Formats: sequence, C-alpha cells, structure tokens
Amino acid sequence: MQLKGFLIVLSGPSGAGKNTLMNAVFPTIPNLQYSVSVTTRPPRQGEIEGVDYFFRSRDEFDQMIAQDELLEWAEFCENRYGTPRSFVDNAIEDGRTVIMDVDIQGAAQIREQMPDAVFIFLLPPTWDELKQRLLDRGKDPDEAIHWRLEQSYVEMKHIVNYDYFIINDQLDNAAERLRTIINAEWCRVQRVDLDELQQLWKGRKKP
Amino acid sequence: MQLKGFLIVLSGPSGAGKNTLMNAVFPTIPNLQYSVSVTTRPPRQGEIEGVDYFFRSRDEFDQMIAQDELLEWAEFCENRYGTPRSFVDNAIEDGRTVIMDVDIQGAAQIREQMPDAVFIFLLPPTWDELKQRLLDRGKDPDEAIHWRLEQSYVEMKHIVNYDYFIINDQLDNAAERLRTIINAEWCRVQRVDLDELQQLWKGRKKP
Repeated sequence: MQLKGFLIVLSGPSGAGKNTLMNAVFPTIPNLQYSVSVTTRPPRQGEIEGVDYFFRSRDEFDQMIAQDELLEWAEFCENRYGTPRSFVDNAIEDGRTVIMDVDIQGAAQIREQMPDAVFIFLLPPTWDELKQRLLDRGKDPDEAIHWRLEQSYVEMKHIVNYDYFIINDQLDNAAERLRTIINAEWCRVQRVDLDELQQLWKGRKKP
Repeated sequence: MQLKGFLIVLSGPSGAGKNTLMNAVFPTIPNLQYSVSVTTRPPRQGEIEGVDYFFRSRDEFDQMIAQDELLEWAEFCENRYGTPRSFVDNAIEDGRTVIMDVDIQGAAQIREQMPDAVFIFLLPPTWDELKQRLLDRGKDPDEAIHWRLEQSYVEMKHIVNYDYFIINDQLDNAAERLRTIINAEWCRVQRVDLDELQQLWKGRKKP
C-alpha cells in the first residue's frame, strides 16, 4: 500500500546540533530527502543547482512569493532564502520523508500552510552545555555567542508550538529518537489512503 | 526530568490480534501497565481483585457512572464493564504508559474525555486472513464468524478517528511498530513539564 510522505521541520537554538543530527540519521532512513531551498545568493564554487540550492534572481524570488510558491522565506545578509512548495509537495506525493531545518519564524509559516507536517524542537541538554558548544565551535566572537544564548532562551518558549522535542544529550540517543519519531509518523492514520485500504477489503468476496 | 505518562487505546476487529500484540510488547517496554477494568461480573476462580478486575456490585458500578468515575463503560451479557478514571490518571501521573483494548464505542467515549490519549487501530492484513484467523480459532460458530466479519467491515470505517494504524501482518513487525509508536509518544512536547524544562535553563547563570 502506497503511503503519502510528510515533511519534518527541525528547529532549535544555534548549537543544538541540527545539522549533525540530520547527517547522522540520513543514511539510516530509506526515502529520506533533504529539502532544497531557493536563494537569491549567488552560487559558491562547487554548489550545484537543484542539489545545494535553487539559485534565482531577486525578481524571480519575489515572483515566487507573489505566486505563493514558497512555504516560508526570510532574508539574511541581504539575500533571500525560501522553501519551494512544489519540491516538498512532489517528494511527499512520491512517498518520501522530507527533512529541513528552519528557525522558529519559518516553522510558524510552514505550520500555517502544512498542518500535517511534523514539527520537532531540538534542545541542547543545558544552557552551560550550549555555551560550551558555541565556544568550542570557535566560529563566533564573544558578543555573538552572548546574543545566541539570549536568543535560544527566548526561542525555547516556542517549544509549545512543536509536536516533538528531542534533547541532544548524546548524538546516538538523539538520532535514535529522531528515527523513532519518523517511523512512528509513518503509522499515522492521516498518511493512509483510506480508499485504497478499504479497496483492499472491498475487493474480497464477502463471506 | 519527570515526564507525564499517557494512555494507549487499542481497537480493531475481533481477530486482529490485540491481546497477542499487547502480550508481545509487554515485557519489552518499561513502565507499561495494563489498565484494570471494573466489572459487575462475579470473580472467576483465581481472579484477583485489582489485578484482573475491580469487582463491584451493580449499585456500586452505577454510582461510579453517576459520579463520572469511568472513562467508558458498556454492558455485555448482562454484566457491566468500565475503565476507572482514577486508576488511569494515577498511573499517568506516576509516569507510566497505560495500555488497554476497547471497542470503537468505548474508544470514542475515552477520546472525548482524554484527548491526549493515543488511539491505535490494529488491522488484520486482509479480510481473507481475518476470516481464516477466526476459523482457526475455532471459538465461534459459523454465524458468529459471519457477524464478526461484517462487523469488522463496518468498524474499519472508524479508523479515521484513530491516531495510528498498525497492520498485523506479522506479530514481530506489529510489535515493533507498537513499540516505536510508544517511544515516539514519549517525545511529544505535550508530555514535558515546560516549567521544569525552563527551570533547567533558568537555574543557570546567564553568560
């Protein structure tokens, strides 16, 4: 029986480990597919159209917004990034699980348009641990780390808008939890084609 | 972090394998607890009060109904059977998963009173398979099997009122799916004490 796929939206504070987690489960889940974003940022060396991003001009991007072709979009550093609805819809129709990470504002936009999507909030175990991870990463100056920590404190209150939470205490545990959630979501009644299911029975001769 | 437990309500046509499935997962899930029903039926030899059933007089049972102490109840063969709310509530507060099987009418009663319960519909793979199982069981006369099969056809339409479906093609597969659903449900945001979660962070000195 062919089941419809679904979209998994992963949010969580910077440093929670969203990308590490997605990369950890990716090889272990059949039919899992990263969502490919559309962006107005020019391609960097080696980036491939349709794999890393869909690269579009500002005009094309704005037209996608106007034609309601984006599930969510946002602007960072004067470039726009968005999630193309058709890409996600097609993969779902094909019976795949699509996974993406997006901030809480983006997740809220998606929730309005795809209430059947699965919303997961990834948490670092403690504030101290998050601070340590951001320091270890060595990517940000102190004031940026301070800002990120403050931000994550505010963001945590939005966990109520998510379906599931995963505490990223150990990568293995977190990956197992994500796999479990994905597998359980495949058992949701809303994913079954009820007509097809009844056909399976109706086709049989009644006793 | 202490999480609240939840109630799992398992329904499905007679012969779908509800009891076999519950018995199969039981030893593998920590903190799983069968719901104990209350009944007006007299105890049979060896049955223990509070383990097999809570045995009550008809008057006591009716008083429980009047005082809204039952999540659902029904009458079979002139005996009444019901699910005591306090038993389920206490186990949930203790952080346990409570599991019960009940027909679709009982499940509908529970859904109204415990919208956070998890509703699972167990399906035999096909009508023919179900018929074969009922015949193999050798428990029912032919007309009863005919009636059960007709009944299961009607009942299947109620699957839309359930959260999850499990197709009981192989007991091992079905048990794995039930375990997965239970484990995923423990990651639901609604099971977290959000105050406690924020405390975990608030307690830390801000950077």
